[in-house]
Amino acid sequence: MSLPTDPSTLAGLVVSGDRRALARALSIVEDRRPGDRELLTLCSGPAPGPPIVGISGAPGAGKSTLTDRLVAERRRSGASIAVLAVDPASPFTGGAILGDRIRMQEHAGDPGVFIRSASSRGHLGGLTAAAGRMLAVIGAAGFDEVIVETVGVGQSEVEVVDAADTTVVVLTPGWGDAVQANKAGLLEAADVFVVNKADRAGADETVRHLHQMLDLGGERRWRPPILSTVATTGGGIDELSEAVARHRRYLADSGEGEDRRRLRRRRQVHLALHEALVSRLGGETDTGDGLLGAVERGEIDPWTAAARLLPGG
Amino acid sequence: MSLPTDPSTLAGLVVSGDRRALARALSIVEDRRPGDRELLTLCSGPAPGPPIVGISGAPGAGKSTLTDRLVAERRRSGASIAVLAVDPASPFTGGAILGDRIRMQEHAGDPGVFIRSASSRGHLGGLTAAAGRMLAVIGAAGFDEVIVETVGVGQSEVEVVDAADTTVVVLTPGWGDAVQANKAGLLEAADVFVVNKADRAGADETVRHLHQMLDLGGERRWRPPILSTVATTGGGIDELSEAVARHRRYLADSGEGEDRRRLRRRRQVHLALHEALVSRLGGETDTGDGLLGAVERGEIDPWTAAARLLPGG
Repeated sequence: MSLPTDPSTLAGLVVSGDRRALARALSIVEDRRPGDRELLTLCSGPAPGPPIVGISGAPGAGKSTLTDRLVAERRRSGASIAVLAVDPASPFTGGAILGDRIRMQEHAGDPGVFIRSASSRGHLGGLTAAAGRMLAVIGAAGFDEVIVETVGVGQSEVEVVDAADTTVVVLTPGWGDAVQANKAGLLEAADVFVVNKADRAGADETVRHLHQMLDLGGERRWRPPILSTVATTGGGIDELSEAVARHRRYLADSGEGEDRRRLRRRRQVHLALHEALVSRLGGETDTGDGLLGAVERGEIDPWTAAARLLPGG
Repeated sequence: MSLPTDPSTLAGLVVSGDRRALARALSIVEDRRPGDRELLTLCSGPAPGPPIVGISGAPGAGKSTLTDRLVAERRRSGASIAVLAVDPASPFTGGAILGDRIRMQEHAGDPGVFIRSASSRGHLGGLTAAAGRMLAVIGAAGFDEVIVETVGVGQSEVEVVDAADTTVVVLTPGWGDAVQANKAGLLEAADVFVVNKADRAGADETVRHLHQMLDLGGERRWRPPILSTVATTGGGIDELSEAVARHRRYLADSGEGEDRRRLRRRRQVHLALHEALVSRLGGETDTGDGLLGAVERGEIDPWTAAARLLPGG
């Protein structure tokens, strides 16, 4: 049976749990195909939606394997889970990322697990905005929780996981990862730290350094726990699952979960506005006979042009 | 003598080569203080401005020392140089960055060298936009060339150096840096590769790997040279200086320099629009009785709200 193309029927199928309809709807909002806005409106609402866990960290830290293990652990309670894997694709890394995704397919036969990748290619308004749209649709599809996993530690990855309810930052023994994560502001976004590959030399020292860093940060209502895992064997995954559950209770009890949801919705407005502007300007490909052309020729400066395009801005 | 505060007098002093006026003007456009738009308009024009060299690469690759050496090398020809050091500051790294800046001050007594840092703190519209404004002002100040140096390899750093005329990507022996740079798209932005710390083990292999990567990328009009340097001793800096000069001639001869300038101006319009929107929405601090409040409460979805704020968008 072919899928309906009108947004309201498609949204109805997404809400009813139809996975093929979900995959179709995700493609529509990811690529901003016709009907995307209506789909997003139909999938949005005042309900809080399922909790979102963000998993980020340096490439090679073992995030995919860890996500895989965490999904398996959470599945034992019967919870249905959607995974959005956000890949800032590059021609040089496509192969490795594809490999990651293939590895995740051990859940392929499990109807309680849904896995989807989002690539940064072709998103004029940025990966963060596209991931936000996809999460809105996934949020309407009846999953008990959502995991969003990013590759790398760039600014856009931080924005993606920072929009999660619980942000898990994955490091490995040694300080290389931490320095990278630090530069991008990821350490500050962490609700849970995981030192993966904890069977390697230097793991204890890395845990100690993270504790020192948290001590320096002063008092806070939630102090991120620092866990050690060996994702390849499953070691420490139950503690990670428990830490995520504990943070989720903290969010509910403290009211901070509500704050994060509000912030997430608000940020999505900014992202949507930015996308609309980029789209209005014709992206980077406009040949610019008009205002952009005048800017290119240096006849008008970019700031005056922006003020004309957005009066009062 | 105190500096004038009105934009047109201040801009006149900037153009005449007054360095104190330049520093003041940079602060005004960096922080978007009153008069910033007029200053930017006065500092912009159809003239191409001085060539901009971007220097980027992983933290610890030795970019500051390399920049320092390159400045000294270029100074030997009598060219005046401005350096904009873009630091995505973090509470955890502030010290190290400050150290870098102090190290640069060996040029402090040289009137032909101007050094300025830009921090990401407080730039709602993003570091890239702020750096673009500062480069516009620096471009009016009569320097023969401009070097913009970034810390780290995140998306915003790539955007900053990608806006340069010549982008130098600094790596060290071993593949850790390259993997990081790769994820952020920096390898693709490179016009010149530098393997710094080339006296360390693995340097030859890194150079070979880069050549292989370029071979895989197919034919191109400009093949980025791959240079080996030891910035701490000055080794290879003359070759780097020559490679930058050679790329600059290529830009002029091929017409690509003009393309890059056009693209830079166009991008700045996008950045300025984004900033104006963020500012119009009251940043992240609006309490939101209006449309944003309705979005926060889930009464309106973010995409519908964006469409109302930017009709036709």
